[in-house]
Amino acid sequence: MTGVRSIDWVDGAVEIIDQTVLPDELRVLRLSTVEALVDAIGRLAVRGAPALGVAGGFGVVLAVRQYPADPSGAVAVLRAARPTAVNLARGVDRVAGVLAGGPDAVLAEALRLRDEEIDSSGAQARLGADLVTALCGAVPRLLTHCNTGGLAAVVGGTALAVVVELHRRGALGGVVVSETRPLLQGARLTAWELRRWGVPFRVAVDSAGPFLMARGEVDAVIVGADRICANGDVVNKVGTYAHALGAQRAGIPFFVVAPESTVDSGTPDGVSVRIEDRGGEEVLSFRGTRSAPHGVEGVNPAFDVTPYDLVTAIVTDRRVIRLDKGDRV
Amino acid sequence: MTGVRSIDWVDGAVEIIDQTVLPDELRVLRLSTVEALVDAIGRLAVRGAPALGVAGGFGVVLAVRQYPADPSGAVAVLRAARPTAVNLARGVDRVAGVLAGGPDAVLAEALRLRDEEIDSSGAQARLGADLVTALCGAVPRLLTHCNTGGLAAVVGGTALAVVVELHRRGALGGVVVSETRPLLQGARLTAWELRRWGVPFRVAVDSAGPFLMARGEVDAVIVGADRICANGDVVNKVGTYAHALGAQRAGIPFFVVAPESTVDSGTPDGVSVRIEDRGGEEVLSFRGTRSAPHGVEGVNPAFDVTPYDLVTAIVTDRRVIRLDKGDRV
Repeated sequence: MTGVRSIDWVDGAVEIIDQTVLPDELRVLRLSTVEALVDAIGRLAVRGAPALGVAGGFGVVLAVRQYPADPSGAVAVLRAARPTAVNLARGVDRVAGVLAGGPDAVLAEALRLRDEEIDSSGAQARLGADLVTALCGAVPRLLTHCNTGGLAAVVGGTALAVVVELHRRGALGGVVVSETRPLLQGARLTAWELRRWGVPFRVAVDSAGPFLMARGEVDAVIVGADRICANGDVVNKVGTYAHALGAQRAGIPFFVVAPESTVDSGTPDGVSVRIEDRGGEEVLSFRGTRSAPHGVEGVNPAFDVTPYDLVTAIVTDRRVIRLDKGDRV
Repeated sequence: MTGVRSIDWVDGAVEIIDQTVLPDELRVLRLSTVEALVDAIGRLAVRGAPALGVAGGFGVVLAVRQYPADPSGAVAVLRAARPTAVNLARGVDRVAGVLAGGPDAVLAEALRLRDEEIDSSGAQARLGADLVTALCGAVPRLLTHCNTGGLAAVVGGTALAVVVELHRRGALGGVVVSETRPLLQGARLTAWELRRWGVPFRVAVDSAGPFLMARGEVDAVIVGADRICANGDVVNKVGTYAHALGAQRAGIPFFVVAPESTVDSGTPDGVSVRIEDRGGEEVLSFRGTRSAPHGVEGVNPAFDVTPYDLVTAIVTDRRVIRLDKGDRV
């Protein structure tokens, strides 16, 4: 975000933008222990697949400093802080892989991971923007879900980086931002980012997406991913699948943008992925305001699975996978 | 609702349950003027296609009393208070049709309309429950959207009356209540009604519906309608279409339950229906709590169109229309 990193290593601790209080407040949290980081991950103060990968890496640095004799327990807790996005466990594993090299090697590896995610975002933006223009023409109107901008990465982001790149090129006709219940990453975070970039947009309730597509107000859907399975199934924020069904029916492209670190060839398909259920309370309230009466039960899958046949293309920092043309992940 | 009517004519005025303050408070509003009724309709203090039909009828009674010389202006304003549900205009037209008979005839016709809606609900419940059992087996798990219970009618309701009837028969395996953003008719109103009936349910965000279907947690979708077009297209609360797409992909039935008064053979298809846009402000807040920053724009279609080919059957108080078998409306 124009110079601000959503997560970074600063003077011996992890600093994150607290995503739970945006857009009302831009607050930076300083996290000096693995426990504080795990808590921040659990309550989504830091979130987004690429940012979680970087958080995992920095968490190992914290673990080594806190528990120099044996960081393995803390590393295991960190690795399991959220189960669905592959990036967290992968970031942890990568940096934990150099534990034998000592604290300096661990920090160096975590910083390398951070820098790679930054570079990756720029590459996704360029490849994605080229593809959207090629398939959707000069000034397409895009629908996006959840938040996939700089807040979800370190800077830049994934799908939203493509949107911003198209805007920079003068090649964007507008954006519909899906609010993304229950935690409103679209209405709160994506809206906040797009305003800072000066990108024109409108917010819609999630369930309006497919109808806006049917009515011809959207030319393509562009989203991120928390895990891309070997068969091309895409695990992403709940609501992604409904938009994909809407795009298919409307005959418009459905793009997924994510770094290579989100591609998990070890998971055969979406059915094999553990989908985090975050409990009913999130569903029954909205920034502290209740909807249903107390005592009512909720069901709250935080992610869903979009089957590969609904995906036009997956764009990573290295390649464009045209699932609609038979390309394989 | 166990004896409580959501709308009725009481001692010379219209009384409604104020649906904007549920579930926190059960407040009855007494409306003595057309203007007060139009305001209540506009802010959804009274809502639901059958209830709007009855409100339209009672509104003509108020108009005749307020403007005995010429009620036509007030009647026209009332008729246009909300554009999408056919029932409001139809209720107004029916009762206005006996204006020549004088005030007593007008009141008698409005009361007849109310009584017919009450009878209609019971008939829908029986026909719908029979059909659900026939197609989905002994204890199906249903997903419903918005509120189609007694609050949306006078008593009983449409789709939710079927759900309650199945529960009474011991023929219901559970309910997923879709919260229904932006105004939360599911989480607030349907949850409130189902608790009073003792029906077990869980609330989900709207966008989770198709994924819960894909995961095998829902055996059928059952919704109401605001207008059923001549070709079978169903206009209903925004989000209905996404659930229909989810049901089709999951291979489960999609049922629509509505009185005959919602069938509009004068409208050829969904594209011909004026879809009310209620303005962005509703999207950008949740019971008064803001989501997006001030100044952000929203898009807020209050309804959507489910094409007839996604509908398994329409159940009215008089018939079952098996669209999946080629029946015509």
